[in-house]
Amino acid sequence: MDGFDIRFVEIAFEEARKSLLAGGLPIGAALVNDGALVSRGHNQRIQNGDPIAHGEMDCLRRAGRQKSYKSMTLYTSLSPCMMCAGTIVQFKIPRIVISDTENFGGNEAFLREHGVAVADAAHQPSITQMQAFIKKNPTLWHEDIME
Amino acid sequence: MDGFDIRFVEIAFEEARKSLLAGGLPIGAALVNDGALVSRGHNQRIQNGDPIAHGEMDCLRRAGRQKSYKSMTLYTSLSPCMMCAGTIVQFKIPRIVISDTENFGGNEAFLREHGVAVADAAHQPSITQMQAFIKKNPTLWHEDIME
Repeated sequence: MDGFDIRFVEIAFEEARKSLLAGGLPIGAALVNDGALVSRGHNQRIQNGDPIAHGEMDCLRRAGRQKSYKSMTLYTSLSPCMMCAGTIVQFKIPRIVISDTENFGGNEAFLREHGVAVADAAHQPSITQMQAFIKKNPTLWHEDIME
Repeated sequence: MDGFDIRFVEIAFEEARKSLLAGGLPIGAALVNDGALVSRGHNQRIQNGDPIAHGEMDCLRRAGRQKSYKSMTLYTSLSPCMMCAGTIVQFKIPRIVISDTENFGGNEAFLREHGVAVADAAHQPSITQMQAFIKKNPTLWHEDIME
């Protein structure tokens, strides 16, 4: 359950970095089916003025219609908010790998209670990048999580 | 808490009908701020191949970036799934009006536990339209809710 493929952690990080370089929130995700990349995406709040496009949501949108997520893992650079956690449960995604539970968190228990296996990658580049963004852009960050 | 404006129930229904006529799932929503329409939207799974575009989500996307939802009500033609319920909680939308809790439901308790006021409009045209769609398109319906 705690094992994960570091390549996909790095793809989520690359997506987060891509968003940062485009002026957006540095949060990215990757959807993986049985070891193969299905889709990758990142937060689009700033870029597209889209409040529902968190990293995980953009990644799931880009994956298009799927008959089932039952053999998939969602990698995310930051711990999911309640929107994204609700989506993971609704879509019956059985497993997620989170790179950063330090800058945001709290929905891991909700996910586990709904049968989702949660692994913490504790990926330092993701943590450091997010921390620096929040410090520099507290207003954008608070808007993104509606706080 | 249980009072609602029937005009907005009807806008959510019109959106649902618009989606049906375009070959999509007949589920629509309206976002209202202090009695004024902010945005309206409908399910886009079939039309855009977008699995996250439930009626509520499409409506929130179309509203764009909002500083706060604290004086808003979300009207939805069908009771919210876990994705949409999680989003309502994350966005701190204080109140929702649901037209149909017969064809789908179960997240009303989750919403109330998180402080959301939930009103049931029991809007017969919405209920009848959804019921007919599910009967005719069980596969699409089950895909939409991942069952």
